[in-house]
Amino acid sequence: MTTDKAARRAKFESVWSMIHDELLAHFKACGMPTEAQEWYSKNLQYNVPGGKLNRGMSVVDTVEILKGRPLSEEEYLQVAVLGWGVELLQAFFLVTDDLMDSSITRRGQPCYYRVPEIGLVAVNDAFMLEGAIYHLLKLHFKKEPYYVDLLELFHETSYQTEMGQLIDLITAPEDVVDLSRFSLQKHSMIVVYKTAFYSFYLPVALAMLFCRIPTSYTLPGSTSPVAPYEVAKAILIPLGEYFQVQDDFLDFAGLPAQIGKVGTDIVDNKCSWCINTALSLARPEQRKILDENYGEQGYLGEAEKRVKAVYEEIGLRKIYAEYEENIYKELMRLIDQIDEGSPEQESVLKKDVFKSFLDKIHRRKK
Amino acid sequence: MTTDKAARRAKFESVWSMIHDELLAHFKACGMPTEAQEWYSKNLQYNVPGGKLNRGMSVVDTVEILKGRPLSEEEYLQVAVLGWGVELLQAFFLVTDDLMDSSITRRGQPCYYRVPEIGLVAVNDAFMLEGAIYHLLKLHFKKEPYYVDLLELFHETSYQTEMGQLIDLITAPEDVVDLSRFSLQKHSMIVVYKTAFYSFYLPVALAMLFCRIPTSYTLPGSTSPVAPYEVAKAILIPLGEYFQVQDDFLDFAGLPAQIGKVGTDIVDNKCSWCINTALSLARPEQRKILDENYGEQGYLGEAEKRVKAVYEEIGLRKIYAEYEENIYKELMRLIDQIDEGSPEQESVLKKDVFKSFLDKIHRRKK
Repeated sequence: MTTDKAARRAKFESVWSMIHDELLAHFKACGMPTEAQEWYSKNLQYNVPGGKLNRGMSVVDTVEILKGRPLSEEEYLQVAVLGWGVELLQAFFLVTDDLMDSSITRRGQPCYYRVPEIGLVAVNDAFMLEGAIYHLLKLHFKKEPYYVDLLELFHETSYQTEMGQLIDLITAPEDVVDLSRFSLQKHSMIVVYKTAFYSFYLPVALAMLFCRIPTSYTLPGSTSPVAPYEVAKAILIPLGEYFQVQDDFLDFAGLPAQIGKVGTDIVDNKCSWCINTALSLARPEQRKILDENYGEQGYLGEAEKRVKAVYEEIGLRKIYAEYEENIYKELMRLIDQIDEGSPEQESVLKKDVFKSFLDKIHRRKK
Repeated sequence: MTTDKAARRAKFESVWSMIHDELLAHFKACGMPTEAQEWYSKNLQYNVPGGKLNRGMSVVDTVEILKGRPLSEEEYLQVAVLGWGVELLQAFFLVTDDLMDSSITRRGQPCYYRVPEIGLVAVNDAFMLEGAIYHLLKLHFKKEPYYVDLLELFHETSYQTEMGQLIDLITAPEDVVDLSRFSLQKHSMIVVYKTAFYSFYLPVALAMLFCRIPTSYTLPGSTSPVAPYEVAKAILIPLGEYFQVQDDFLDFAGLPAQIGKVGTDIVDNKCSWCINTALSLARPEQRKILDENYGEQGYLGEAEKRVKAVYEEIGLRKIYAEYEENIYKELMRLIDQIDEGSPEQESVLKKDVFKSFLDKIHRRKK
């Protein structure tokens, strides 16, 4: 990590300790017993601040790009609360996703529900992470004209994420392998709903609301009105889909030394871009191999190797490379269509918001 | 059930089928796969409409009392959506409470998580019940001036209920019996936060918002301003506590033929009013019996019988009867303090709102 990036992360993290203290102070003021205060503090610290923080910090980055200047201390604090709202929402989902998937570790530590004294209390603890978002929004944004828009955005995004999780859970249940349920179309629905809305659209839309970007505007000298949230969504949803397709591809083709983990999607019966692409192209004898080996451990990992061999026969690496170049070109085309108006124009969309996301994702190897 | 009550229930239930269809139509419009639509429909039907519906219908009752007249069809529909919002919130909590408590049945059917194909998917399904509330509020109330107050009320009540559930889970875990964690004060915190806010304050406050009762008003001819939501809370929270104390007492002393179930609080290690009252009065030898037998099945239920014998020795029936008469008098006193102004006065609190709740609860035997 560069020094700049480390400093930016440290600044963002310093707001977390204020947020933690605010949440605990409210607990105390309600007369909650000491054990409950300690439990909540542990819940917050175990589940919220230990990730990469990309989603939360992207709210700050986007506001800086939109405003075209560094933020005042007061602005930074408010924007960081929105960023931590995204991180709290993610924590709420990850705690329960891990439980529903019987996952073992997360961020280098045991999944929260696997900590001995926690168990199924993790479910209520997850609710409290979600509840914290609305408590914080009220505390920091109640007076803002866009307060109700923030609430609706968090509500809608949560509901969408839950819808995506539902399709994922019933398409690829932990214990039943049935590839006839899979399809590239379903994969796309899962990825868009379960990941893209909360990871890409939510942080940018929050930043746009903070910058008072209206639902619709017409630039000076233009006659066609712009619907900026729709424009942002039309870019960020396919961009989020690209990010997840890449993630799926790296699970198969990435080098463990680079991606920092060994891929397990094949053995775990995941509804991944790789298997869905393979299914769409497989000849009957290849399909048979996939049906018999997907979601299986097999002796010494033989089952997984057979699936990977089919991926190679089908030419998945080349298909991915083509996909990546096409989606990159298409996203660049959409971004270049954005009219920024004059450089001094305030409260409008900027191409750099989207270029900055695309640059971080394009051709990444980890 | 009287015909009137049955008709009122049927009318309320008819709004549910509209709500169900609205939620499903949105799912369909989002392009959710057929299996996911069917799954969501089953989730809604299994978990939301099968209870007593007291909480939801009390929103309708309260609005009728506050307005002093029957509702138009249009008004009824909107108010019933708020009522079903309370029922959805309760369903969200009950589905996951049952999972966390390893409960077996609910409303005469297996708990949702115990339905074979459901299992831990119940957690995400519960989230969707909560998500449905905000989707419905946006659909039916976005244009109302009190829309943001409705959102905040649901947020705050959810957070309070989760706080109550947290204290309950760590005070009386399923597998560890430790009566030193119990106290009447903790019992009160659990009951107020886990039950009273969402069951009593929420329905009335929703009805008050619908009737445009402001946060503060001064009646003609009076000089002292009234804070009606605070007045309502100051009555409904002790009233909710009384309701739960009564529930706890009936679990011990109620006749199974009357209460429609066999009490299990002693065997289930519940942090009930009975055990906490007994602990506060027990002599050392009685305390020893409670410590050794509470939360135990014992041979032929002997452990439970020994706990009940201590309750009788301590005179729990008499203590309860005294508690009930005192709290009844105190609640009547608080209710009688309410100034309703002239009979034509609109958008103010009415005594009958609270009397109607108290009448349903006082001296109930089931």
